Amino acid sequence: MTQSHASNIKPITERDANVLYQHGTLAQLVPGLLEGTTTIGELLTHGDTGIGTGEGLDGELIILDGIAYKVGPSGVAEVVPDDFTLPFASVHRAAFQYQCQRSDIGLEELNKKIVAANGRANTFFSVIVHGTFSFIKTRAVIKQQAPYPTLEQVADQQAMFLGHDVKGTMLGYFSPLMFNGAAVAGFHEHFLSDDHTIGGHVLDAVLERGDILSQVFDTLVQHLPVDDPDYRSHDFSNDPIAAALAKAEREPRKD
Amino acid sequence: MTQSHASNIKPITERDANVLYQHGTLAQLVPGLLEGTTTIGELLTHGDTGIGTGEGLDGELIILDGIAYKVGPSGVAEVVPDDFTLPFASVHRAAFQYQCQRSDIGLEELNKKIVAANGRANTFFSVIVHGTFSFIKTRAVIKQQAPYPTLEQVADQQAMFLGHDVKGTMLGYFSPLMFNGAAVAGFHEHFLSDDHTIGGHVLDAVLERGDILSQVFDTLVQHLPVDDPDYRSHDFSNDPIAAALAKAEREPRKD
Repeated sequence: MTQSHASNIKPITERDANVLYQHGTLAQLVPGLLEGTTTIGELLTHGDTGIGTGEGLDGELIILDGIAYKVGPSGVAEVVPDDFTLPFASVHRAAFQYQCQRSDIGLEELNKKIVAANGRANTFFSVIVHGTFSFIKTRAVIKQQAPYPTLEQVADQQAMFLGHDVKGTMLGYFSPLMFNGAAVAGFHEHFLSDDHTIGGHVLDAVLERGDILSQVFDTLVQHLPVDDPDYRSHDFSNDPIAAALAKAEREPRKD
Repeated sequence: MTQSHASNIKPITERDANVLYQHGTLAQLVPGLLEGTTTIGELLTHGDTGIGTGEGLDGELIILDGIAYKVGPSGVAEVVPDDFTLPFASVHRAAFQYQCQRSDIGLEELNKKIVAANGRANTFFSVIVHGTFSFIKTRAVIKQQAPYPTLEQVADQQAMFLGHDVKGTMLGYFSPLMFNGAAVAGFHEHFLSDDHTIGGHVLDAVLERGDILSQVFDTLVQHLPVDDPDYRSHDFSNDPIAAALAKAEREPRKD
């Protein structure tokens, strides 16, 4: 076997394909620890596929085929540079396996069927759905400035987007119950339309027709911002982590 | 730089020294998922230092300098072979840094001072204490047979050991609050006397005089037994994880 030195593309080993890399924890966002403590450039050394949010909740990130897109309050996706910083992200090397095709199914039902089909509620895995969505509802938080507010305080500072008959990709991560806090237990899904005009954190969807692919991980590599002074000194013991994550991940703003 | 092919000893890179490897989660032990899903041989590829328990809670394991010792109901340590299986273990490559020497200090006070000294309640780290313990209280659970009982049901099936003026090593891992379940939040410490006649899971101790060394990790590599049928099918949502771990990690048997 020969190796091309002109290419950065590395073959995916079985070992790589089983690993989910996460920087930061979702629990950090609850009390407003929103400083960017890693970069897109660094994340891309751990995977070509992922989701995250920028410093100060600057947009909803989705990484597909090694390119990082950010959806901010305009709803339109833009490519972000390697030095863009993030407090939280999940990435992996794509080696998805085809699971099935589904039609006319809502998000909740779709997610239930995915868990049932692979019987893996205690395992980290990723799901990618590409197809036509008859309905998609996403949101993007508006970027905050330091000193940062809590996650609950930014609940009314979101832009929400509704799309109909949209072709696009929904990328999600499923985390087991016992890792709630590090991630959000259950699914965490971001979206990007093929034409990049709509995307963000998925609140609801109806899939008209699409292919479901999944990738199971046996290993979580959890990297923490251990030298960030705000992270080091924060007392998490009184933060309402579980309640705040459940609310923030699924509910749109109340207005 | 030349490499010796006659030696298995690999130099520790900065990257290796920052990584804590964990197989399984402590939460699995609560409902009695006690099947051995990794081996000492496999664990030793991820580190030379660590703690764990054998299949069916077969002893309290401590790995020092690449050698795995088990303390069972006799209280005496024996070396275990590479094919010994475990449901749970934490290991890393030792690169401890000297912190201080302490005298005449109880376990609780010692642990508090260690956290205060390095200011790292939100970071995984390891602590190793070598010295003379004027008092040490340890326990070892008695090995269970399948179908396995819950952690609470084995509370009265422990052997407890008391030592006075014992020279030995206490090895512990500190886990942040938000990873309670994956590990036990706070300290989890095992002991081995220099003469191997007493060891186990530390319940209490008074250090007469000893050296404190610590090693901080920025990364947790969490490996899950994703293909174990009992693990895959278990519903953790009703297990009293936090309460059972707090009780099991610190309290001796009630009798």
